[in-house]
Amino acid sequence: MPSEKYTISDLGEKKLIKRLLLRSQNIPFQSSFFDDLSLKSLSDDAALIDLKDKYLVATSDLLNRSKHFPHNMNYVQIGAKVVTVNVSDLAAMGAETIGIIIDMGLPPDMKVSDFDEMVDGILQACEKYQMYLIGGDTNESEELTLCGTCLGIIEKDKVLLKSGAQYKDIVAVTGPLGLAAAGFMALNIDENKLKNLDPAVIDKVFKHILEPEAQLVKGVLLAKTGYITSATDITDGLLSEIGEIMDSSDFSLGMTIYEDLIPIPSEVKFISYIMDEDPLNMALSFGEDFQLLVTINPDKFEQIKDDIGVFQIGFVNSSGDIRMIDKEGDINILQPEGYEHFKKIT
Amino acid sequence: MPSEKYTISDLGEKKLIKRLLLRSQNIPFQSSFFDDLSLKSLSDDAALIDLKDKYLVATSDLLNRSKHFPHNMNYVQIGAKVVTVNVSDLAAMGAETIGIIIDMGLPPDMKVSDFDEMVDGILQACEKYQMYLIGGDTNESEELTLCGTCLGIIEKDKVLLKSGAQYKDIVAVTGPLGLAAAGFMALNIDENKLKNLDPAVIDKVFKHILEPEAQLVKGVLLAKTGYITSATDITDGLLSEIGEIMDSSDFSLGMTIYEDLIPIPSEVKFISYIMDEDPLNMALSFGEDFQLLVTINPDKFEQIKDDIGVFQIGFVNSSGDIRMIDKEGDINILQPEGYEHFKKIT
Repeated sequence: MPSEKYTISDLGEKKLIKRLLLRSQNIPFQSSFFDDLSLKSLSDDAALIDLKDKYLVATSDLLNRSKHFPHNMNYVQIGAKVVTVNVSDLAAMGAETIGIIIDMGLPPDMKVSDFDEMVDGILQACEKYQMYLIGGDTNESEELTLCGTCLGIIEKDKVLLKSGAQYKDIVAVTGPLGLAAAGFMALNIDENKLKNLDPAVIDKVFKHILEPEAQLVKGVLLAKTGYITSATDITDGLLSEIGEIMDSSDFSLGMTIYEDLIPIPSEVKFISYIMDEDPLNMALSFGEDFQLLVTINPDKFEQIKDDIGVFQIGFVNSSGDIRMIDKEGDINILQPEGYEHFKKIT
Repeated sequence: MPSEKYTISDLGEKKLIKRLLLRSQNIPFQSSFFDDLSLKSLSDDAALIDLKDKYLVATSDLLNRSKHFPHNMNYVQIGAKVVTVNVSDLAAMGAETIGIIIDMGLPPDMKVSDFDEMVDGILQACEKYQMYLIGGDTNESEELTLCGTCLGIIEKDKVLLKSGAQYKDIVAVTGPLGLAAAGFMALNIDENKLKNLDPAVIDKVFKHILEPEAQLVKGVLLAKTGYITSATDITDGLLSEIGEIMDSSDFSLGMTIYEDLIPIPSEVKFISYIMDEDPLNMALSFGEDFQLLVTINPDKFEQIKDDIGVFQIGFVNSSGDIRMIDKEGDINILQPEGYEHFKKIT
């Protein structure tokens, strides 16, 4: 690819990360502390440091005001979100939290009271997820920018990765999908349409984008079972994350999902009706739900479902494709890029 | 302080960081992995994670195009700098490097070839400092923003902190001061004045800001001696860093420095002459030299000086002040904010 002719936006985020990390694996390295420093997780959202029987997990996310925080978010919620998105990466690996370092790029005209509220939000989220704020740095920046780096820890033989899915495994999620999409869409509902909606619906979908939650407890419990074969958090939409797990698996593996089993709450359906959107597309192709997507050993699924609370949405197939069995029983081939690009094959 | 009336720029960076971290120490915490998770380093630039006989060190820095990278810096140098500033924090603690996670906020119109050069710079710096690029994330951002989080490791009883300086310790630095100030000033020299300067001088001071170096080797060696009582890296100017060490020490401790012993290279003097600046001020009050400032057990100083290469600039006093003995032998009381605010007392 003639790289002078193309820009960052031509390539897209996932290809850039791969371009970045693929080139980083051939550095000669010697350490008096480690014999076998692990780089197992370069295809995951977190790095693993080998501590003999445990992995230290480090994950990092950069968020900025215009792109990652809805305009109706207050500073407490902004502070909490930078913690939550990082904890979600740890949850996807089953790791317990240790702490977070937060670097801040702050606009010079930001009020100190707003800064304090943001710190309140950070600390509230740290307490919720049982971790420390362990460091940070502040700088001036035109746009409010927050970079969180979260550290966690997990037994080496229990860590959850994107790789590892097996043919016939159950595909499951930890909770409902589409609520974040509904929340972002609800930001743009005009006042006339708003009148037709139950305020409780608006409250619920707004709460989902203003106060997102990481599935840390479920992630840790799932890892402890020892029967989760692969996992990721749903930050970029279900289909995209299915694609990530498939990219980390044998090329012959695919996934079949049942339209009927996708957990779409009534609030998503209300908003989709008002906004003339397809609720299934909202559940499949929009990010920020922060649920976990896992593949589970089929012999242990019922027990795990009852003990921890997960919802089957399909199974691992051997077609190499993402297939959706729709409500008519037809098979549709889907693309990781999104439901709207799908192609019906029967 | 009525925080609604004040902005971020009223407070300044160091006070903000203190405001951020002071409030983070009272979170109830339980872990099945750690009995005594360390928070020892909240006043340092890095966090320490307790691994029984070792500390894992995590440090983080956020840099953006307009504020942290000189306009004549190329993308290879930009990539290298985000690694260097983080490694410098590890060097100040005496830690060996493990790896770095780099989050990038990228302008959508940035060329992929520039991105690739930036990654080249990151990887070259990783190789230089014997570490891995262990993770990363990319996002869109109006301004190029790079957030590096560096992990290192050190024997617990060898870690260097800002706290620990003792009365009568030797105060020393690892190398010359003022070259970065000279480099930044040289960016603004007009063409007429430039003619009067040896191009080798310009090359040297530019190299210092375009390709800064972290004192990792010296930091690791200094820590291993066991006789360094406190340390920090000089990112914000010598006086400011002296103030940091004093803030972390008993309030009765101060430092006396000798004007004659401040290592100011001839290149700094040439630039200061052309720019009508005070070379001493350039050495004391400007940041980005990335040398280390350390206090050393006086009985061991000569040995360490010969073995590792450090330069005495003064000693720890019991006045609680920063004092400079100038070339006339007079004592001047200096402020951490900078040499220009000094007050002569004899």
